[in-house]
Amino acid sequence: MSTKIKLGLFGFGCVGQGLYNVLNQTEGIKAEIIKICVKNGSKSRSLPDHYFTLDKNELLNNSEINVIVEMIDDPAAAFEIVKSALKSGKAVVSANKKMIADNFAELHSLQQEFNVPLLYEASACASIPIIRNLEEYYDNDLLGAVEGIFNGSTNYILTKIFKENLDFDTALRQAQDAGFAETDPTLDVQAFDPKYKLCIILAHTFGLFVNPEEIFNYGIQNLSTFDINYAKEKGYKIKLVAFCRRLEDKIIAGVLPRFVKPENKLSAIENEYNGILVESAFTEYQFFAGKGAGSNPTGSAVLSDISALTYNYKYEYKKYNRNKLEISNDFQIEVYVRYSTRKSIDLSLFSNIKETYTNADSGYIVGSISFGELRNSSWINRSDVNVIVSAENKFVLNNKTGTTVAELHGELA
Amino acid sequence: MSTKIKLGLFGFGCVGQGLYNVLNQTEGIKAEIIKICVKNGSKSRSLPDHYFTLDKNELLNNSEINVIVEMIDDPAAAFEIVKSALKSGKAVVSANKKMIADNFAELHSLQQEFNVPLLYEASACASIPIIRNLEEYYDNDLLGAVEGIFNGSTNYILTKIFKENLDFDTALRQAQDAGFAETDPTLDVQAFDPKYKLCIILAHTFGLFVNPEEIFNYGIQNLSTFDINYAKEKGYKIKLVAFCRRLEDKIIAGVLPRFVKPENKLSAIENEYNGILVESAFTEYQFFAGKGAGSNPTGSAVLSDISALTYNYKYEYKKYNRNKLEISNDFQIEVYVRYSTRKSIDLSLFSNIKETYTNADSGYIVGSISFGELRNSSWINRSDVNVIVSAENKFVLNNKTGTTVAELHGELA
Ligand SMILES: NC(=O)c1ccc[n+]([C@@H]2O[C@H](COP(=O)([O-])OP(=O)(O)OC[C@H]3O[C@@H](n4cnc5c(N)ncnc54)[C@H](OP(=O)(O)O)[C@@H]3O)[C@@H](O)[C@H]2O)c1
Ligand SMILES: NC(=O)c1ccc[n+]([C@@H]2O[C@H](COP(=O)([O-])OP(=O)(O)OC[C@H]3O[C@@H](n4cnc5c(N)ncnc54)[C@H](OP(=O)(O)O)[C@@H]3O)[C@@H](O)[C@H]2O)c1
Repeated sequence: MSTKIKLGLFGFGCVGQGLYNVLNQTEGIKAEIIKICVKNGSKSRSLPDHYFTLDKNELLNNSEINVIVEMIDDPAAAFEIVKSALKSGKAVVSANKKMIADNFAELHSLQQEFNVPLLYEASACASIPIIRNLEEYYDNDLLGAVEGIFNGSTNYILTKIFKENLDFDTALRQAQDAGFAETDPTLDVQAFDPKYKLCIILAHTFGLFVNPEEIFNYGIQNLSTFDINYAKEKGYKIKLVAFCRRLEDKIIAGVLPRFVKPENKLSAIENEYNGILVESAFTEYQFFAGKGAGSNPTGSAVLSDISALTYNYKYEYKKYNRNKLEISNDFQIEVYVRYSTRKSIDLSLFSNIKETYTNADSGYIVGSISFGELRNSSWINRSDVNVIVSAENKFVLNNKTGTTVAELHGELA
Repeated sequence: MSTKIKLGLFGFGCVGQGLYNVLNQTEGIKAEIIKICVKNGSKSRSLPDHYFTLDKNELLNNSEINVIVEMIDDPAAAFEIVKSALKSGKAVVSANKKMIADNFAELHSLQQEFNVPLLYEASACASIPIIRNLEEYYDNDLLGAVEGIFNGSTNYILTKIFKENLDFDTALRQAQDAGFAETDPTLDVQAFDPKYKLCIILAHTFGLFVNPEEIFNYGIQNLSTFDINYAKEKGYKIKLVAFCRRLEDKIIAGVLPRFVKPENKLSAIENEYNGILVESAFTEYQFFAGKGAGSNPTGSAVLSDISALTYNYKYEYKKYNRNKLEISNDFQIEVYVRYSTRKSIDLSLFSNIKETYTNADSGYIVGSISFGELRNSSWINRSDVNVIVSAENKFVLNNKTGTTVAELHGELA
């Protein structure tokens, strides 16, 4: 884009104001805010009135504006805005993971059809440039896995629980008070938010466009003091980990809480920080960490996308359709399952059981189970059950005599 | 580069063979090796003879070859090769940090003059895509500092010392046996290697082309059991840390060993891994970690550069000359100085002294000193003296009533 960037912003909340701060202090980038569309006409704003409008068409039909930055909290409205912008040839930067994950294929087609870029680095792990790295630097087919902590507010809650010995409800309330969790924390706590990010990362890691409903997410809403004590006794922390991994020509993916040992790089990621491990065939792992949420960190990710537009950057989706990979639930996972009533759990689903424990009002088992069967089990959604991936887990396809399952048997023998 | 990539390789040692392995397993990249120039005609090779030549002109004058990959261990010869290649319009990928750091300005001019790219991601921290990230993602002027562990072999030695209680000489020998340190380990142990990398990173962080001789490097060659015990008693590790940091309009830079606390992200970087902290105004820090040496990790960084050439990627050096920044030694640093003879150290150089200790044959002081005066002191090069940056160090410009110096006084009061 050789002409100067003239911005139309949608939303002036946490991220919108962060972008404004960052843009204001960056002399190198020649971008000017022309107009800002918001929802509520009666809110007082930190910028002069003439910037604001409630009418989206004042931005979308303004031929002076060449870049639309979408930072609203309403995915359905966001999708309409982004579609209109792309169709009218305006480049778009968005921070909206749900909107992007839900509409990946269509957004991809629109970019092709109208030959206009849509960038969304801020949507996945805010300040960590993971999409750009997957897209540009890991543009070959050597990637084996990407996994990490993709949600700042649950990580903040879990950090409070482990550092300050709080129970779940108190930690959640503190996270809300500190502005790290929403009044309705469902999307974060039940692991929908990291799942949307995982879907975006799946596209740039393995070239797969996946409907979020295909991916299993299991959050930390059922975390009990019993579970926390179990982790602490073993010297583990619990982290909410999103993963995608290639096993032969299958891609496995999901978001679940996981016990992590101190030597796991993710163990040191605390509070609102996110951390991502990228495994590739020849480098073992690369690790990225940085703030995964917050006004200025997210604003600065949006700014890097705006800056990239100045040199005509666009995602090329080079991996899309390159390999014939598909999502599978047909793999073994080693989990800890805590329950109040043992008979509510169908033990026959487990291919091996490493540990069982029962006391007067609780019990748990640690064992391997097919991910598909875990996901579809009758008890997984019970509120008196909690599932956490074992610290020893290694993923293997079902019916494989992978070293892992063999190793597990070895350990039991 | 729309035509297919035809490679001429210089060097088929550790990195050259790594590139071959990685290239061989990457279907996505259409690049073909035409010819390989090596030095020693009598060595047996793992590829058919027709690939090899001892005559550099067979590559440089071959019009079929459009990309030269320079992976030799002789910086002077490498510079001649790279110059010739650029002048004849061939794109170049190089892994040679010393060659690049020593000739930055000239290599920059050649790229401009002949409008041909020179990429060198593998030269700085091997598998970590730090240059690409600094160049593309942090292309604004918000960066405050980059610091980290840039040398795999010294980190391997330090890991052995702290994990296995080895002394320095034994750890060095083990690193040599394991292939992580050269027979002549001077460049690594005396911190020249990480300094060359730092010079490259300085160019892409702050737009400064600096002669390596301007930058102070102090290695781990004088590390004694006394120093190691001091660290262990405090619960610290010692890491060889390269840093560059903006303080107002000055850039400070250097490589020195540093005491690191367990909560420092660099503390967890062990063996041949490297770790890099990038501080920017709005994201606090970003952390990158990955293998900093080795055949395949370095080869895969070279491959990512080759792949980038397929879509005409080049470094733009956008920050070069953007701000009027200059290197300064005029800042305070807090150091631990261990000596055998107290009177060899000129205590009057220290602006404050936090600790002193003496026993029958050793002693140390911990205090703040101007970096310029430390560097030029009469005792810094004595073999019975060792200098390690304090874990509490915060850099401040001289003659600034920065919080740090004030805090230090506070601690002493
Ligand atoms: N917060 C973070 O740390 C973070 C990190 C990464 C990504 N994101 C994503 O960034 C987006 C924005 O998040 P946020 O935290 O900034 O939300 P927020 O603080 O709730 O602000 C939302 C903004 O959107 C405006 N808005 C809502 N519906 C609109 C509509 N239909 N038309 C025009 N404006 C509308 C609101 O207008 P009023 O001001 O009039 O209410 C408000 O300014 C979300 O997609 C979120 O998932 C957030
Ligand atoms: N090793 C690593 O982990 C690593 C990591 C990052 C960067 N690097 C850099 O990568 C470069 C290569 O390192 P390396 O470890 O691969 O070195 P190496 O194993 O010693 O191999 C050096 C190769 O260069 C060839 N060579 C030397 N001088 C030559 C000349 N004048 N003309 C043609 N070929 C010549 C040698 O030929 P013969 O085979 O005939 O002896 C050999 O094949 C160095 O700049 C190094 O700093 C290395």
